[in-house]
Amino acid sequence: MSDILRWDDQGGIVRLTLNDPGTLNSLSDEMLAALSAQLSDIAASDARVVVLAAEGRAFCAGHHLKQMQAMRQAEDGGRAAFADLFDRCAAVMGQIRNLPQPVIARVHGLATAAGCQLVATCDLAIASMDAEFGVNGVDIGLFCSTPMVALTRNVGRKRAFEMLSMGLFLTAEEARDAGLVNRAVPPEVLDDCVDDYAGRLAKKLPTAVRVGKGIFHAQAELPVDAAYTLARDAMVENLGHADTAEGIQAFLEKRAPRWT
Amino acid sequence: MSDILRWDDQGGIVRLTLNDPGTLNSLSDEMLAALSAQLSDIAASDARVVVLAAEGRAFCAGHHLKQMQAMRQAEDGGRAAFADLFDRCAAVMGQIRNLPQPVIARVHGLATAAGCQLVATCDLAIASMDAEFGVNGVDIGLFCSTPMVALTRNVGRKRAFEMLSMGLFLTAEEARDAGLVNRAVPPEVLDDCVDDYAGRLAKKLPTAVRVGKGIFHAQAELPVDAAYTLARDAMVENLGHADTAEGIQAFLEKRAPRWT
Amino acid sequence: MSDILRWDDQGGIVRLTLNDPGTLNSLSDEMLAALSAQLSDIAASDARVVVLAAEGRAFCAGHHLKQMQAMRQAEDGGRAAFADLFDRCAAVMGQIRNLPQPVIARVHGLATAAGCQLVATCDLAIASMDAEFGVNGVDIGLFCSTPMVALTRNVGRKRAFEMLSMGLFLTAEEARDAGLVNRAVPPEVLDDCVDDYAGRLAKKLPTAVRVGKGIFHAQAELPVDAAYTLARDAMVENLGHADTAEGIQAFLEKRAPRWT
Repeated sequence: MSDILRWDDQGGIVRLTLNDPGTLNSLSDEMLAALSAQLSDIAASDARVVVLAAEGRAFCAGHHLKQMQAMRQAEDGGRAAFADLFDRCAAVMGQIRNLPQPVIARVHGLATAAGCQLVATCDLAIASMDAEFGVNGVDIGLFCSTPMVALTRNVGRKRAFEMLSMGLFLTAEEARDAGLVNRAVPPEVLDDCVDDYAGRLAKKLPTAVRVGKGIFHAQAELPVDAAYTLARDAMVENLGHADTAEGIQAFLEKRAPRWT
Repeated sequence: MSDILRWDDQGGIVRLTLNDPGTLNSLSDEMLAALSAQLSDIAASDARVVVLAAEGRAFCAGHHLKQMQAMRQAEDGGRAAFADLFDRCAAVMGQIRNLPQPVIARVHGLATAAGCQLVATCDLAIASMDAEFGVNGVDIGLFCSTPMVALTRNVGRKRAFEMLSMGLFLTAEEARDAGLVNRAVPPEVLDDCVDDYAGRLAKKLPTAVRVGKGIFHAQAELPVDAAYTLARDAMVENLGHADTAEGIQAFLEKRAPRWT
Repeated sequence: MSDILRWDDQGGIVRLTLNDPGTLNSLSDEMLAALSAQLSDIAASDARVVVLAAEGRAFCAGHHLKQMQAMRQAEDGGRAAFADLFDRCAAVMGQIRNLPQPVIARVHGLATAAGCQLVATCDLAIASMDAEFGVNGVDIGLFCSTPMVALTRNVGRKRAFEMLSMGLFLTAEEARDAGLVNRAVPPEVLDDCVDDYAGRLAKKLPTAVRVGKGIFHAQAELPVDAAYTLARDAMVENLGHADTAEGIQAFLEKRAPRWT
């Protein structure tokens, strides 16, 4: 357990907290390694929901630029190290996407560049009204190409291009209207709202959530017929669980299900 | 003609009415068979528009759960029957998508699970403000994986995941803002609005609508260059119709077209 | 340089102005040829931003219908000529999409059929509140199948089908809310808003914008893992530019970058 990524489990709700406020919770080598390790552990655990939160005045301001500049000392000017960095970062995003549990981003303050990518990658996101969202790497000469992958899977093309090419920021309410976050709430109720979402999700049948999330992103990128084949198989698998048989039966008998 | 699916044709506007209010118009084996048969007939007819409506307090509340539970009696616990059920259901959705005529959902009351899938699958949807939309199978332990396929082709990812994983419902106005329906109108003008839409569509050149709808969904899932090839061929086909030549000529001569 | 397409370059901001108001700036053979030639020149130039504007009461009302009707005189009734026309038109749209520079549509008045396609194809669009958007070819018997390709990559399915099948128009504000344009502004501030956008874009590092735009549309149509591979390579390329190294270093040292 790394200090820069705090871990807390309350009744199946795992809260991961980015805790490197001095770098605005940058996705440093250490942070990516910590996230990767924790997400692997969570995937293998019986956790039900993950909340991704952060300490300090930013949620996450993207990559660790000092570490990146240092990579330039290599003989190839950093090319291999940069490629490896973005592969490791994309792998962490893939771990979130492929995690059996739903992941809720709890966003306050700045969520920029790869920090905005993190929000876009999470299954759900609740933002404090003080949050700001940007993929403004272009302002320092580095177009946010990797964040773009996640962003354009949440937000329309015209809006995404505007954010990427001009460095325009979105308020929390604009981010909600654009499809990047689910809710924009006053700072003082942010935790209540996140707890409410996490609490509701934790009460769902984990096997059902796991099966559904397991194909959510994949089916969206397939031709519709292939998507239906994937979804049919997911339904059949889901129906094969005894708890689902009981859930349906309980509904038909107008009583609460007795889940194991 | 099955009693559970009423059929009415007024001047090329076919109205199909789900009429099994006792099961909240569930997509039972009988309903799926009736829909499949009717849609085949309509595809081969010279109908111009289809309105899909429903009797009773719900538009459609999804699959027939009692029938599904009965399928568990089979030696394989129902696996084969479940797979067949979802294949038949996806086939009906495909019939709507591939129907030469545009299909308008007239939605009132509950549209849940496969009922919400039906709305998402129709080309257009007009909702009464009393309508509610949900894919809340997760609440009984069955994630709405097949409805998800249609839903995510209408609604952004964050919103879709929220509905699917938490069982959250949308009001008609929220469904409109999310892209699931075209209009949310007071109950007392629902039929007027649907009639207006159907009436306008019925006046368009059927061959033009047929060609355009024929590639609408397919091109959206192709790389842009392949989509343009498909669209070019559609344009050439459309332009080959004498009525289209006349339509363009009439426009150039500032007169009404004389269509056959 | 053709008179029907005016060209103006102010400090790297190239303004292309459709100047055939007598045909509502139709995409005639001549206009397509002029656009193609100009876009090729711009692609090879060191222009930083392109603004696509128009003279007269319409932005662009689509194809040149008289020229199209004349094509019917050929032995095949125009089939080959029509196919060639839509190939040339799609090629121009591809030139805009693949142009190294961002393209901003400055939209006033009518933007219909292929004119609406042009707006959808541009990377950004600023609309005057007097602008109207439609893909209403269906009204003359010619479904807007090629404009549909660009439209459905900006606008949700239900809304796009409504526009295409019913000929419904959007106001500028509706177009903004639907994702077709970035801003809807009063006519008297249209040029200020366009100048502001163009001016900001012109200040970004051109190599960064070029790399990012270079994969923007392509990655959006790939499976997420393939998209990340493309984006990783874009990031590595972008980081290899000396100006980007300087931009990052300047940011770390809290000073303005000294770009070449």
